[in-house]
Amino acid sequence: MAVSTPEPKTGPDSIDTERLKRDILELAEIGRNEEDRGLYRMAFTEADMEAKQWLLDRLKLSGIRGRLDGAANVIGRVGPDDPEVPAILIGSHTDTVPRAGMLDGALGVLCGLEVLRQLKECEDELEVPVELISFSDEEGRFGGMLGSQAFAGLISPETLYQPDLDGIVLRDAMEERGLNAFDALGARRSPNTVRAYYELHIEQGPVLDEAGESVGIVEAITGLFKWLVRFRGEANHAGTTPMEMRHDAFMGLADFAHEIPRILEENGSERSRATIGKAQILPGAPNTVPGEVEFSLDVRDTDPEVLDELANAFRKALSAIGRRRQLMMELEIQSRIEPVACDPELVGNLEKKAEELDLLWRRMPSGAAHDAQIIAGIAPVAMLFVPSRDGQSHSPSEWTDWEDIFAGARLLCQSVRSIACKESSN
Amino acid sequence: MAVSTPEPKTGPDSIDTERLKRDILELAEIGRNEEDRGLYRMAFTEADMEAKQWLLDRLKLSGIRGRLDGAANVIGRVGPDDPEVPAILIGSHTDTVPRAGMLDGALGVLCGLEVLRQLKECEDELEVPVELISFSDEEGRFGGMLGSQAFAGLISPETLYQPDLDGIVLRDAMEERGLNAFDALGARRSPNTVRAYYELHIEQGPVLDEAGESVGIVEAITGLFKWLVRFRGEANHAGTTPMEMRHDAFMGLADFAHEIPRILEENGSERSRATIGKAQILPGAPNTVPGEVEFSLDVRDTDPEVLDELANAFRKALSAIGRRRQLMMELEIQSRIEPVACDPELVGNLEKKAEELDLLWRRMPSGAAHDAQIIAGIAPVAMLFVPSRDGQSHSPSEWTDWEDIFAGARLLCQSVRSIACKESSN
Repeated sequence: MAVSTPEPKTGPDSIDTERLKRDILELAEIGRNEEDRGLYRMAFTEADMEAKQWLLDRLKLSGIRGRLDGAANVIGRVGPDDPEVPAILIGSHTDTVPRAGMLDGALGVLCGLEVLRQLKECEDELEVPVELISFSDEEGRFGGMLGSQAFAGLISPETLYQPDLDGIVLRDAMEERGLNAFDALGARRSPNTVRAYYELHIEQGPVLDEAGESVGIVEAITGLFKWLVRFRGEANHAGTTPMEMRHDAFMGLADFAHEIPRILEENGSERSRATIGKAQILPGAPNTVPGEVEFSLDVRDTDPEVLDELANAFRKALSAIGRRRQLMMELEIQSRIEPVACDPELVGNLEKKAEELDLLWRRMPSGAAHDAQIIAGIAPVAMLFVPSRDGQSHSPSEWTDWEDIFAGARLLCQSVRSIACKESSN
Repeated sequence: MAVSTPEPKTGPDSIDTERLKRDILELAEIGRNEEDRGLYRMAFTEADMEAKQWLLDRLKLSGIRGRLDGAANVIGRVGPDDPEVPAILIGSHTDTVPRAGMLDGALGVLCGLEVLRQLKECEDELEVPVELISFSDEEGRFGGMLGSQAFAGLISPETLYQPDLDGIVLRDAMEERGLNAFDALGARRSPNTVRAYYELHIEQGPVLDEAGESVGIVEAITGLFKWLVRFRGEANHAGTTPMEMRHDAFMGLADFAHEIPRILEENGSERSRATIGKAQILPGAPNTVPGEVEFSLDVRDTDPEVLDELANAFRKALSAIGRRRQLMMELEIQSRIEPVACDPELVGNLEKKAEELDLLWRRMPSGAAHDAQIIAGIAPVAMLFVPSRDGQSHSPSEWTDWEDIFAGARLLCQSVRSIACKESSN
């Protein structure tokens, strides 16, 4: 991988790479399973709470005011205390999926921590408060994005009774950690108090790694729609039913899959993705022509109009195939999430700073969902990606080269500083 | 459905349609489940043994010598006792799949019974003995075609320890009915003692029903090969992995399915069939690009050379798709069964008799396997099909119009008689 970052500078305009590295390795010990080498810091488990406490301790060590809000989001703050001055937020999460790697959300939180420590050293120059926020349950033990949703005022008492896979509800899981879940309803933050939200994250895809680039500046977080599609035909004997007399539901699915590249080319953008990730064939016997097939369709793009056009084209293709093969087609819309554009000014600032730092970077979409998508409802957001080696994520093999991590952290620091400080602002 | 059979004739060249109808309805009561209306006469169950005894009683009532051989095949015989004279066999089976219809193998046995009763009335004219044989476990509680395989000398002591789905082995199941499974090894019949084998069966496909024809004269029983194919690619995030960086195993399967019509057109015959009946997609999550897919391929034709060409073409297509999509392809040959040609003289005789009876008939292949396929190893075979309404079989909705049943029985009777009797032979 090409490393294009300049020699680390010392002084207030840089980061302490050794300290950041130590933090990453230290946090990676919390919740580690010695057998499978994976991290297990699912929301409100003991390991998750330990990571939150570790972060509070780190803040305290650097003399930074830290606290838990009602949703158990860890918040640190430097700069003016004046609540009238809206803050710049740097956020992500330290909870993990089961058997996770050491980076994912933790990297964004630790880079944010390092930026706060740097800014603490020149706190007098800060015109704008800067906050670090580590959101609870991003990964979804109880549905996902809990902390950022509470922060944006998007949860209700109903949310508190969401069960995990073992049937334990959020309220009880929080109570077990000495937390009152109803306090999460009070974690709502007024949009007036947030000037901007930054999130650094690993890409979780192969693009930067394959291109040998250090940083991705996210223009937009893709929206998506998820459909469950069913073709019903007729189950028949594979030996006695001539090809032309079949109503083979699986062949309907195969026809449809074959149309995907054409539909993307005709109606999509270079950011469009369409995936059939799940399919069930019934009755599922080698000597029986499939009578029914049920499959998922996951379609993403950063432009809501493109999503609409794709939905329209996919629907037409499904209907036409159903008619042609005499299959009954049923379509269930399971979800639709609107794309979120990152703030053009923040994106422009990041690009300028990336050039100043002489980084290899690109503009790119985020294909995965992040807390930033939720916070975009109350504030301008910006996201930075660092490369995921081989596109790996949610796995102990998740990795980013140190130099790319440092490059991302420096860019985050320079961009936030340029907005927050009198001197640096330009 | 067009009914083209002439008015039933009386006398020795015809059958007793009322008696045949009564038999069909009476046997259909044995093993019937009152709740789901299906028949449950799986091999060596109480109901299966009751059906065998019922058949022995029917033979006895008509003064025909009946017996069970070592494999519990029911055998009845009319005509010369001389063991030097090879017999004409009329066979099929009365065992059923679970929740079966009333026809399937039972129809062939009962038509054979009716033919024997007709011939019994003119036994003196028979130059050739005619036997009815109802084979054990055709449907496969213990693997399938047990009785015909024992008859053709194709079983070994190992066969007797074949388990059913509940883990009960054949030996114990037979013992429970007072039968010694090792006697099945002695059921082998010398090829010298069999002049021809006839089997009447329901088509189990839609061809005759759609064409409005009464009888199919089978030219050949299709052979087949079954493959289990695996494509291995890479499981990736459906949002973060651009389309051109994917190694989507499911799309490999879709590509392959799309090639099936071309491959059949280029390399197959009008009798070729290819079916993907089963497929498993891994990991099988809507938001994950499939990393692996495993699927069945069932290919049939009546010509061994065509089967070879199809196998070759399918293999090339699979390899090419694997290379194009960078998927690892694995192919496991699960079985190959050679096609069996019916005896041209017997087929010619059936055609002649069908014309004489003024039936609407066609030559056709058998796409399903039958006891005839096994007996073909020791004797010339012939098969007759009667229509399956809507192609239904192995289901309580299985049905054939009475007039088509009678047409099939008459044709069977006339053809067997023409070979067995001095007078009628021509």
